[in-house]
Amino acid sequence: MKYQKFLDIKSVQIQDEFWSPLQSLVMETVIPYQYGILNDQIDGAEKSHALDNFRIAAGKEKGEFYGMVFQDSDVAKWLEAVAYALALRPDAELEKKADEIIDLVGQAQEENGYLNTYFSIKEPDKKWQNLQECHELYCNGHMIEAAVAFHEALGKDSLLKIMCKTADLICDRFGKGKVRGYPGHPEIEMALLRLYRATGERKYREEALYFLNERGTEPEYFAEEAKTRKLELGLMDPKDRNLTQTYAPVREQEKAVGHAVRAVYLYTAMADMASEIDDPALTEACRRLWKNITRQKMYITGSIGATVHGEAFSVDYELPNDLIYAETCASVAMAFFARRMLELEVKGEYADILEKELYNGILSGMQNDGKNFFYVNPLEVVPGVSGVLPEYKHVLPRRPGWYQCACCPPNVASLFTSLGEYVWGEKDDTIYAHTYVGGRASFKKQGISVLCESNYPWQGEIRYTVEIPKKYQSFTFAVHIPGWCQGWNILLNDKEADYFYQDGYIYLQREWKNGDTLKLTLPMMPRRVYSNPLVRADAGCTALMRGPVVYCFEETDNGKNLAALRLPKDETISVDTMCFLGKKNIPLLKMNGNRVMEEEGQLYSDKPFPQKETALCAVPYFMWGNREAGGMRVWMVEG
Amino acid sequence: MKYQKFLDIKSVQIQDEFWSPLQSLVMETVIPYQYGILNDQIDGAEKSHALDNFRIAAGKEKGEFYGMVFQDSDVAKWLEAVAYALALRPDAELEKKADEIIDLVGQAQEENGYLNTYFSIKEPDKKWQNLQECHELYCNGHMIEAAVAFHEALGKDSLLKIMCKTADLICDRFGKGKVRGYPGHPEIEMALLRLYRATGERKYREEALYFLNERGTEPEYFAEEAKTRKLELGLMDPKDRNLTQTYAPVREQEKAVGHAVRAVYLYTAMADMASEIDDPALTEACRRLWKNITRQKMYITGSIGATVHGEAFSVDYELPNDLIYAETCASVAMAFFARRMLELEVKGEYADILEKELYNGILSGMQNDGKNFFYVNPLEVVPGVSGVLPEYKHVLPRRPGWYQCACCPPNVASLFTSLGEYVWGEKDDTIYAHTYVGGRASFKKQGISVLCESNYPWQGEIRYTVEIPKKYQSFTFAVHIPGWCQGWNILLNDKEADYFYQDGYIYLQREWKNGDTLKLTLPMMPRRVYSNPLVRADAGCTALMRGPVVYCFEETDNGKNLAALRLPKDETISVDTMCFLGKKNIPLLKMNGNRVMEEEGQLYSDKPFPQKETALCAVPYFMWGNREAGGMRVWMVEG
Repeated sequence: MKYQKFLDIKSVQIQDEFWSPLQSLVMETVIPYQYGILNDQIDGAEKSHALDNFRIAAGKEKGEFYGMVFQDSDVAKWLEAVAYALALRPDAELEKKADEIIDLVGQAQEENGYLNTYFSIKEPDKKWQNLQECHELYCNGHMIEAAVAFHEALGKDSLLKIMCKTADLICDRFGKGKVRGYPGHPEIEMALLRLYRATGERKYREEALYFLNERGTEPEYFAEEAKTRKLELGLMDPKDRNLTQTYAPVREQEKAVGHAVRAVYLYTAMADMASEIDDPALTEACRRLWKNITRQKMYITGSIGATVHGEAFSVDYELPNDLIYAETCASVAMAFFARRMLELEVKGEYADILEKELYNGILSGMQNDGKNFFYVNPLEVVPGVSGVLPEYKHVLPRRPGWYQCACCPPNVASLFTSLGEYVWGEKDDTIYAHTYVGGRASFKKQGISVLCESNYPWQGEIRYTVEIPKKYQSFTFAVHIPGWCQGWNILLNDKEADYFYQDGYIYLQREWKNGDTLKLTLPMMPRRVYSNPLVRADAGCTALMRGPVVYCFEETDNGKNLAALRLPKDETISVDTMCFLGKKNIPLLKMNGNRVMEEEGQLYSDKPFPQKETALCAVPYFMWGNREAGGMRVWMVEG
Repeated sequence: MKYQKFLDIKSVQIQDEFWSPLQSLVMETVIPYQYGILNDQIDGAEKSHALDNFRIAAGKEKGEFYGMVFQDSDVAKWLEAVAYALALRPDAELEKKADEIIDLVGQAQEENGYLNTYFSIKEPDKKWQNLQECHELYCNGHMIEAAVAFHEALGKDSLLKIMCKTADLICDRFGKGKVRGYPGHPEIEMALLRLYRATGERKYREEALYFLNERGTEPEYFAEEAKTRKLELGLMDPKDRNLTQTYAPVREQEKAVGHAVRAVYLYTAMADMASEIDDPALTEACRRLWKNITRQKMYITGSIGATVHGEAFSVDYELPNDLIYAETCASVAMAFFARRMLELEVKGEYADILEKELYNGILSGMQNDGKNFFYVNPLEVVPGVSGVLPEYKHVLPRRPGWYQCACCPPNVASLFTSLGEYVWGEKDDTIYAHTYVGGRASFKKQGISVLCESNYPWQGEIRYTVEIPKKYQSFTFAVHIPGWCQGWNILLNDKEADYFYQDGYIYLQREWKNGDTLKLTLPMMPRRVYSNPLVRADAGCTALMRGPVVYCFEETDNGKNLAALRLPKDETISVDTMCFLGKKNIPLLKMNGNRVMEEEGQLYSDKPFPQKETALCAVPYFMWGNREAGGMRVWMVEG
């Protein structure tokens, strides 16, 4: 076994003070709410029509297609989330709804396996003509992932059968010696790999490999396609090979560029394939792209995609906090990518980013009530500017209820319900705890279980209990130590433990006894974080973190005009744990600071404007925007 | 005489170490270069076709109209600059060229006085249909100003006769009981007032007043026009009444909004009219709009118009240094507005802004060689970002040679050749020195002259010599003291002078003797300037000024990545006077600072990145971009 693998959802039970309520929120609120959206039953929400499109394509209703060209994917992503949710907690009524929708998908599928309601209803003669924009492979990919989820999580194969037929059509059509092509929005590559693993059918893996290998070869496919296609959507410039990640064959790509979600879906598939076929050149490309993202193109919150233009990566170190794009889906994609990189090689930096995304960039996408969602996750919000001025129209200061291009909310729902797949891993005789999500893992090969208990991320004590059917068993237990953590304490059965540290993990190799406990204590004092000076947006500023959680300053705690606040360099930051947004024991950060005082009628002055002492309060970034509307700022001017 | 009036160009001789070479540059390089442009004789420059349009309209050539709908204005503005240039220094060859063009303008004019080559050639049936966008009144306005310039500066009336015919047509067409309307781009209002003064014809003044009074009344004209017009250019949203300065009647307007050049041309005409007809409500509106611009919407360089979207004012205090628009023409317009406000009431703040524009926002528009021009004047330029990324495409890091929408270069040429009109004023028995431009003013009413000698803005000594035909004469001599100036020294005939200070001016009321000298000494130590904390773009930063000149840091002196530089709060700034860009005795600012050091592969750190001492050098802002390409920054992080 060369590569480490994460445990699947069925091998992991989550019981966690932080995550279990979020999973319940997704199951009890988000999924039912999204069902209402898909059926256009939510007053005041933007029209979805997504299920009506399927009903029309299935011949069960009359009407016109409505929505984005990728509207089908909303249904697919909801189904995927439902599969995981049902694995977490049976729900006959929800399962019945899902089964009905799966039936509907089957009825909307064409005889030969083709599945896409936009084309079936609206443009039946123009299928597969515009792979760059039309998202057919993307929508099919998401539905395949939903099918695999039902198969893996519940052992239900009705959707799998439907989607194998679609996958077969794709395999028959595209490939060497067949029609050339690859998707504008990668997704099918990840999906086909999962489908291969679920079915054992090698052609799905080969097809995924074809799409990866063909990308970026000459002549570039999208430019070729653009010469003859009769269907234009005009979303992307077919000549911009950065935007479409086709500037070089994937193994030669050096820079993470273009549409951030598309890019990272592609890189995730590359990483997954690299371990699948043991491809060192692909592995090396993944490492390069990972480094470029995490060393040059990532916000402190884990968000990526700095510019609204193409919803894309900007140039290195260009990370504006206010003009930002930072799509929630791109953070979800980074969690996918991190997980696959950890499978390729166990290194703490991958787990660090996985953690960063979970506790910041992804979680900030969802309102406390589970009914409102950010697409864009700014690090600075300015009343009267954000969401108002033309440059800032996309930066909404409040999470809206829904929007037409509703990719992010169901992605968050899926990720949270499938969270079990992001915690534990194994390889040979080593078991891995990559994140500190509480609950029990069952390592079937070793026949052991491990229980994790913690109040992470709010407290730094994590307690593992080993459960072995026999009295003793020899294996290695590896636990991730976050990169932010300077100095930690490890006790084995309350005594100093013997371990070795490598690449962000501690390894305890020994004869384990049933009931052995491992207690890890991480220092949780608040930290000031600084940006590389090449990040001009953060010049002169500091951000606050505690554990993996990034903090921010909101107007409601700190008054108007957050840019006027100053955090003195030597000021102590204290932790004040309180009930916040209806959640108990949330650590807020308190400190003394200064406010530069406005002077009426004076725009510039030869003297520094006077400062006044003021109490400052920072709250967890992912919880921002849940109270009164107002400004927000992660990076605070120091000095 | 209720209002102070500036001396006209014929009453002022300029002999100034700073300005005389610039005037020569305009006459010897800019004007001939622009003549080449208008005739499409400059290799590598964007096609102008402006004179060809006139030739085609005149029936002297065959061809199509080419260029912007306001292409005619390039010719008008060149002519205006030439009129002033000829007043400064006779040039028979240049005068002949101008006369030929004036003849051509006359031939291109239609029988009834209509003058616009776009419509005459291309859309003869669609004249006057789209006042909001089509710039007919704007182009006519500029040509009227050129005509008045030839009349005033040279006593030549050939163009005046042509343009009176056009003005008569406008007066016949628009007005109460006639066709309703006013211009999308104000200019005609200023022009008709000048034409009235040149000709004594009151209807021109009445027509200007009509355009001002009608603006912003209900129903709003542009919305009405949009209902029926058959010609759409789509530049401006007719529903956005802010963008067009029609959100209220002009006397009720509170906020400076919309397209910055259009706005300030309008306010200039309002101020001119207010003194012309002694209208307190109009005066009060001008004061309000002035305050809103200078207290909430102006860069430290005097630049205005913060956003490329509509080339417009942004909201109060939103003054991004990098996304900036800050059109050179808008600074020119502010000089117009300041001059008219000074005529309404002598207050130092108007002269302060006039000075700020002259030495910063306007001058930065022109390259040292007189052949390259900025349209947009950024306060921060970042290599690889400015002029490159979609949000920053308009922020060019280098002055281009020309561009199709070439409004700024001829505006700068006109302003510099007519600079004499921005120096001296008089009212009753008081003479005013508003700016320290060297040379001689002839106050004909009092029969006196004053000579000003200085090396301003580089040195702070300004010496005035009074020349009186009689031995003694009683009058008041008022000299502006800049707002930036803390403590000054005044010597009358080398002895302490008796004066009173009011609103930014010193007044010396006495019996003057021929040969009396007044020596003003201003403190010229470098100053740190701070922004109101409501300007979030400048938070934590300081800018350097010396006298009226804003300084900036260029990459060529300070190394790459200027955002990594820190200017310690207590560091002394010293002046190093040297030959710079071929000009002698330019004071550069030198100081010790620090550079935050990059660390390879580290985007964020829990420790501040280490700093290294480094020598910093700031150069006059208006001289930036004349050496190697690279970054530039006005606001430097302090601390």
